Amino acid sequence: MIETIAFDGDDTLWHNETLFSVTQARFADLLAPYGPFPDVPERLVATEGRNLSSFGYGIKGFTLSMIETAIELTDGRIAGRDIQAIIDAGKSMRDHPVELLAGVRDVVEGLVGGPRRLMVITKGDLFDQESKLARSGLADLFDAVEIVSEKDEGTYRRILDRHAIDPAAFLMVGNSLRSDVLPVVGVGARAVHVPYEVTWAHEQVEPVDGRRPGVWELAAIRELPALLDELDAA
Amino acid sequence: MIETIAFDGDDTLWHNETLFSVTQARFADLLAPYGPFPDVPERLVATEGRNLSSFGYGIKGFTLSMIETAIELTDGRIAGRDIQAIIDAGKSMRDHPVELLAGVRDVVEGLVGGPRRLMVITKGDLFDQESKLARSGLADLFDAVEIVSEKDEGTYRRILDRHAIDPAAFLMVGNSLRSDVLPVVGVGARAVHVPYEVTWAHEQVEPVDGRRPGVWELAAIRELPALLDELDAA
Repeated sequence: MIETIAFDGDDTLWHNETLFSVTQARFADLLAPYGPFPDVPERLVATEGRNLSSFGYGIKGFTLSMIETAIELTDGRIAGRDIQAIIDAGKSMRDHPVELLAGVRDVVEGLVGGPRRLMVITKGDLFDQESKLARSGLADLFDAVEIVSEKDEGTYRRILDRHAIDPAAFLMVGNSLRSDVLPVVGVGARAVHVPYEVTWAHEQVEPVDGRRPGVWELAAIRELPALLDELDAA
Repeated sequence: MIETIAFDGDDTLWHNETLFSVTQARFADLLAPYGPFPDVPERLVATEGRNLSSFGYGIKGFTLSMIETAIELTDGRIAGRDIQAIIDAGKSMRDHPVELLAGVRDVVEGLVGGPRRLMVITKGDLFDQESKLARSGLADLFDAVEIVSEKDEGTYRRILDRHAIDPAAFLMVGNSLRSDVLPVVGVGARAVHVPYEVTWAHEQVEPVDGRRPGVWELAAIRELPALLDELDAA
């Protein structure tokens, strides 16, 4: 019996990666007059990868990586006003309305008041994530929220310990195999993978081969209640 | 009887503001060839204040505010290589060794194994703070760590609830009147103020008038054990 269900935030409860993609497109447009640069996306991904250990995940680190990439690609010719435009693009990401994925509100509201504890376990910048949760309108529906800087087995073990949750009674729901599925089954709990339309380059892992025990894949979060009924009946 | 002691991180356990001050001095040097700009510190403080609601606290937000200030002051004339130098200054802050304040290790080690639960409650960027705590060498000495984006009465109430701590049995130790003292006494707990040599402009509040019940001021953290003995005896 599943006693606690935890949801990932970005690209599970609310859209996130699409906003980064839109900003990346604006970034490429902004650099076009200095170009042509056919490999803006690849160069930006490379800068982000190099900077993960300095900046972690989130909008501010992404903004700094865009600035670095712009300086690199233009050999320092990028104008101050264009750097300011990059910073403004970062700020507008922060201020962008939080858009829930289809079905999210119905599914979460349907679980409230039921027998299971509901959590959010989300990775990223504390400031960004708190702001998104607050603006999602969902914050009051969850019994606990954990914002973490990395989702590995150690992180999940600490969270389960802290909340006195038996791994066998814990189910994680998220869009990332790397962050929401593999480390969760690694600590003996179960996971539901709901792929998002886009996966950030630094979250990509090889797809899981065949069917893995303790992991279910759903096309949309709307299918979660039926799966829970199935698991309860099993 | 105090059952839980929580320590602030930046400028209470480890030096922080001095590192920001050193970086600000490097920033002013970097802008000098474009100047003269007699008011670099004031302009930077103004940009930071304006950006707090977009960026929150931490090194990445500070770096972005330095870049914005540089663009503003130079009317966009700042060269790409100098923007990169600002980003590099931000990265080197992140990589800077964590230096404990004098007496911190002795005091914390002296409390370990005693009757009181030890916590860290620190404000700022999740990524920065986790990294600093890990590199401080103190992480294993604490029973719990809370990294928060703002320290107000609501925050302290949530933390005390979450850990089932009676406010009357809770003591916070920190350098900021605004973050570590006033909201703590506001929720009915007690606080020890250990001023640091520098206070960040955005943490400054008017000094507390006269002696306030539930607040003690110490010149250095070394004086904490004697105060605890006094409180126990009272």
